[in-house]
Amino acid sequence: MDKQQLMASIRSGMPERRWQHVQGVIDTSIVLAERFGADPVKAELAAILHDLAKFWPVERMQEYVREEGVDLAVLDYDKELWHAPAGAWAAVKDYGIDDPEVLDAVRYHTSGRAGMTLLERVVCLADYMEPGREFPGVDRIRELADSDLDAALVAGFDSTIRFLLEKGKRIYPLTVAARNDLIRTTTNIIFTAQGGN
Amino acid sequence: MDKQQLMASIRSGMPERRWQHVQGVIDTSIVLAERFGADPVKAELAAILHDLAKFWPVERMQEYVREEGVDLAVLDYDKELWHAPAGAWAAVKDYGIDDPEVLDAVRYHTSGRAGMTLLERVVCLADYMEPGREFPGVDRIRELADSDLDAALVAGFDSTIRFLLEKGKRIYPLTVAARNDLIRTTTNIIFTAQGGN
Repeated sequence: MDKQQLMASIRSGMPERRWQHVQGVIDTSIVLAERFGADPVKAELAAILHDLAKFWPVERMQEYVREEGVDLAVLDYDKELWHAPAGAWAAVKDYGIDDPEVLDAVRYHTSGRAGMTLLERVVCLADYMEPGREFPGVDRIRELADSDLDAALVAGFDSTIRFLLEKGKRIYPLTVAARNDLIRTTTNIIFTAQGGN
Repeated sequence: MDKQQLMASIRSGMPERRWQHVQGVIDTSIVLAERFGADPVKAELAAILHDLAKFWPVERMQEYVREEGVDLAVLDYDKELWHAPAGAWAAVKDYGIDDPEVLDAVRYHTSGRAGMTLLERVVCLADYMEPGREFPGVDRIRELADSDLDAALVAGFDSTIRFLLEKGKRIYPLTVAARNDLIRTTTNIIFTAQGGN
């Protein structure tokens, strides 16, 4: 299956509106990869794949997460998290992708994790900031992404955690681990305080 | 050592202002214990002890956390967290307290943890809402505490997590685990949305 066939197959599994988002993530991943020294070809492939399971029935996502078996704990958390590991396993099983870097970038694009690779950070950040995204704080994320991949990604995780606090929802531990790790390893986090406690 | 001697000893190890806070936590712990069915005698003792190591030199806190050895990972996080496990160990070693429920209420009063006992929840919540506390959201915590211990405590942890987001600081995983667990086990969490993202 060549790239065009892969894209057509993935596109056929989601609404047109979501495919526009995927295209935004593809373009942004390539730009960020070139900016921060990741492999743009791998970034593009991970971006094409990242949401392939987003519109699957919940049972199918569950089945793929179980089959892969890497992180079964995710099944105890919000369904919104499941399409990432399900998509990584589908990339292997249904599309024959075998590059572990690309697969990890798909697997952790929603949650993050401690010790994210450069490629994982690029794709995860692209997913937060592609041009179609609109949420409070996204402009600040884009601004930080001009020069500081990790600070921008911390701001992205901050927005996710704030959203979950406001909704009274649980916070997936890997996301906290990802943010903690980026703060620990980054010397120059620019604070994203928005006032008020 | 009787209660008066214990209180005098702990009072002598902190500024007068902090002792006033301890008195607030004692009074509030007793009220909350009676309201939600915890043991008020144990709640009072845990409250007396809870901040005993708060003004210790950092090296001494570190030494006590190491000696107890229950959660060495805390030493990798903010120093503000260390006085709780250090105080639990001091309660054993220096004051001969041997009630594991009281000791756990001291140990987890700052961080929380998954599976908090009723006594732990009472003391942790009292520490958030005693009358001397003033921070954005504290009135909402007090309001929830009229009828719902867990919802009030979730609101308390929310305020801690928001504070850490705004300061660009790492979030201690036990606090997220505590909040997640309370949300999972509570049927009637009242949302604490404050608008924004």
